[in-house]
Amino acid sequence: MKVGILGGGQLGRMLLQAAANYTVETYVLENDATCPSAHLCHHFIKGDIKDFETVYQFGKELDALTIEIEAVNIEALEKLAEEGVKIFPSPSAIRIIKNKIQQKEFYKNNDIPSSNYLITNSLEELAKHTDFLPAVHKIGEGGYDGKGVQIIKAIEDLHKGFDAPSVLEKMVDVHKEIAVIVCINQQGETAIYPPAEMLFDPILNLLDYQVSPARISEKVLWKAEAIAVRVAKSLQSAGLFAVELFVDQDQNVWVNETAPRVHNSGHHTIEGNYSSQYDMLWRIILNYPLGNTKPILPAAIVNLLGAPGFSGEAIYEGLEDVLKIDNAFVHLYGKKETKPGRKMGHVTILSNDFQELIFQAHKIKQKLQIVS
Amino acid sequence: MKVGILGGGQLGRMLLQAAANYTVETYVLENDATCPSAHLCHHFIKGDIKDFETVYQFGKELDALTIEIEAVNIEALEKLAEEGVKIFPSPSAIRIIKNKIQQKEFYKNNDIPSSNYLITNSLEELAKHTDFLPAVHKIGEGGYDGKGVQIIKAIEDLHKGFDAPSVLEKMVDVHKEIAVIVCINQQGETAIYPPAEMLFDPILNLLDYQVSPARISEKVLWKAEAIAVRVAKSLQSAGLFAVELFVDQDQNVWVNETAPRVHNSGHHTIEGNYSSQYDMLWRIILNYPLGNTKPILPAAIVNLLGAPGFSGEAIYEGLEDVLKIDNAFVHLYGKKETKPGRKMGHVTILSNDFQELIFQAHKIKQKLQIVS
Repeated sequence: MKVGILGGGQLGRMLLQAAANYTVETYVLENDATCPSAHLCHHFIKGDIKDFETVYQFGKELDALTIEIEAVNIEALEKLAEEGVKIFPSPSAIRIIKNKIQQKEFYKNNDIPSSNYLITNSLEELAKHTDFLPAVHKIGEGGYDGKGVQIIKAIEDLHKGFDAPSVLEKMVDVHKEIAVIVCINQQGETAIYPPAEMLFDPILNLLDYQVSPARISEKVLWKAEAIAVRVAKSLQSAGLFAVELFVDQDQNVWVNETAPRVHNSGHHTIEGNYSSQYDMLWRIILNYPLGNTKPILPAAIVNLLGAPGFSGEAIYEGLEDVLKIDNAFVHLYGKKETKPGRKMGHVTILSNDFQELIFQAHKIKQKLQIVS
Repeated sequence: MKVGILGGGQLGRMLLQAAANYTVETYVLENDATCPSAHLCHHFIKGDIKDFETVYQFGKELDALTIEIEAVNIEALEKLAEEGVKIFPSPSAIRIIKNKIQQKEFYKNNDIPSSNYLITNSLEELAKHTDFLPAVHKIGEGGYDGKGVQIIKAIEDLHKGFDAPSVLEKMVDVHKEIAVIVCINQQGETAIYPPAEMLFDPILNLLDYQVSPARISEKVLWKAEAIAVRVAKSLQSAGLFAVELFVDQDQNVWVNETAPRVHNSGHHTIEGNYSSQYDMLWRIILNYPLGNTKPILPAAIVNLLGAPGFSGEAIYEGLEDVLKIDNAFVHLYGKKETKPGRKMGHVTILSNDFQELIFQAHKIKQKLQIVS
């Protein structure tokens, strides 16, 4: 079977590592020929994943296509789907997710709990909604990795907002942020990974580290699973869906955002679970039985981000110290250049002891610095 | 760092899957452009690993080289080593191992327990040693995957022997066959994996399935570890060494053979141990700290061999049934053509329950047939 991936970043890289357990022939489309995935596929094609003709030409001889980023040309995917190429997730699911305004409307239309919101088309419009603050302003299209999101606590923050079609979401009084990955195969059967619990870097607004399974009550777990499955099923598509959820102070659960693909919140499943999210997506694409989402051991991950103030060829300071940790698994994405906040790798830690997970995660964060 | 692999089979494939956790730039030399490794490296070079000039030209711009098969041009590796390319293992270690006669003499010269032997240069010479039977006849050069080995129980088996320089080894009264992988880094530090216990297919003489850790007494474990470390240290080379050992009925331990590279007996370490044998070899080559050899869970592996009577494009009958097993991990090597006895993949099973390991291993052997 010939399967293409749109995008060649670290998610593609880890997908391709998992692909080599099966007999699939892999294709990658990406503009950067030195990207993390370029050398791990059977066929690398340099090209723009946002360009209709490029995506169409890339996909038309393939059996199936998947994405590792939502910013792709959906029209080309729609045409390919009409012509019989299987797309994971469906183009309509990507269309809903890709635009944050449509995504919010989708939650509302499907009775999925998500914070109240307004649509704003300019900074001028935003300024009219001071009674809606504190809120989060998210640009409709083009946000990624913490970009395109601004917290607007009060009037003095209004200038941080976006002068473009955006969504203004009521701020949730967050107790915990968790993520649930839901897997749907071509027969509509589902599998759910245990939730991961996330902690963010307050400055860069990027995922910093996480533990899984999340420390939540059974009641919250049930709500989270029910909501995540509802999101995934409402998208009416086979694929893998990472649903980011807020748990508020009153134990209510709200959808923050969904990614219709493998996701940072599932990196730990490579070592921590019987079937990793990457393995699972191949099972869905290749029409194999769904995998086992159970944990082998509880896990934490630390994201390795480019240190502030450093741009250029990456140097991994303290890597040796981390490689000496008995229960740590290092993943470097092979990106030549570091930038402040750029995702350069992650480290997974496995342990039955929660304190040990946290202890090692902190140690890794302190020891390993990506400079230039 | 630029690292080359001589050979592009399944061992190379799994090495390259592990390489993508680090930033190493990978090169593969192999005559078959559709081999399991060709698409997983940065640079694939089609060429004969037995040819001096080809290996020399391949290696001379690289920082380091490793092998996934012993049948390589050693003279080229020696020249490359002189010119500063690091070779894992050293050419002299490969030279000792590659020839079964030299390998036996090496054990003898280093006081490593290994069964008594004679050297025979022809079938005529072999016929003179009927008093040495029952014995195992092994061809000096060119044996691989069960080929080049014949059991000579009595006079009527003499015709099965090799009419070429060979070694005739006294048959050991085997109670168990185990393998210990020893890792030596560039500073001479060692790490040892827990032994794997092997069971062979009596007809094809190929490894059939195995469990790890082996079910042996502490005394046998100590002997096995001590002998395996002695083998690896006596080879005076950094690298990874899989030492195959016989445990006889009296609990004595004898070296059967050594492979100076990643090995079939270590496949389970991918999921079963903190640092897999593949990860470990990269740590040695990249001069990183040695990894943790401890098991996460006990493991079994089933080798997926081409079914007798089938040659041609591979079909994996019963694959779905195996993919449904909750604690099984499928690895297909992506070889297009199957042949009787060809190694086409393996399945790892993890469980704390030994009976469960054996039960699932048998089930997988029965369910999955590789036909054409």
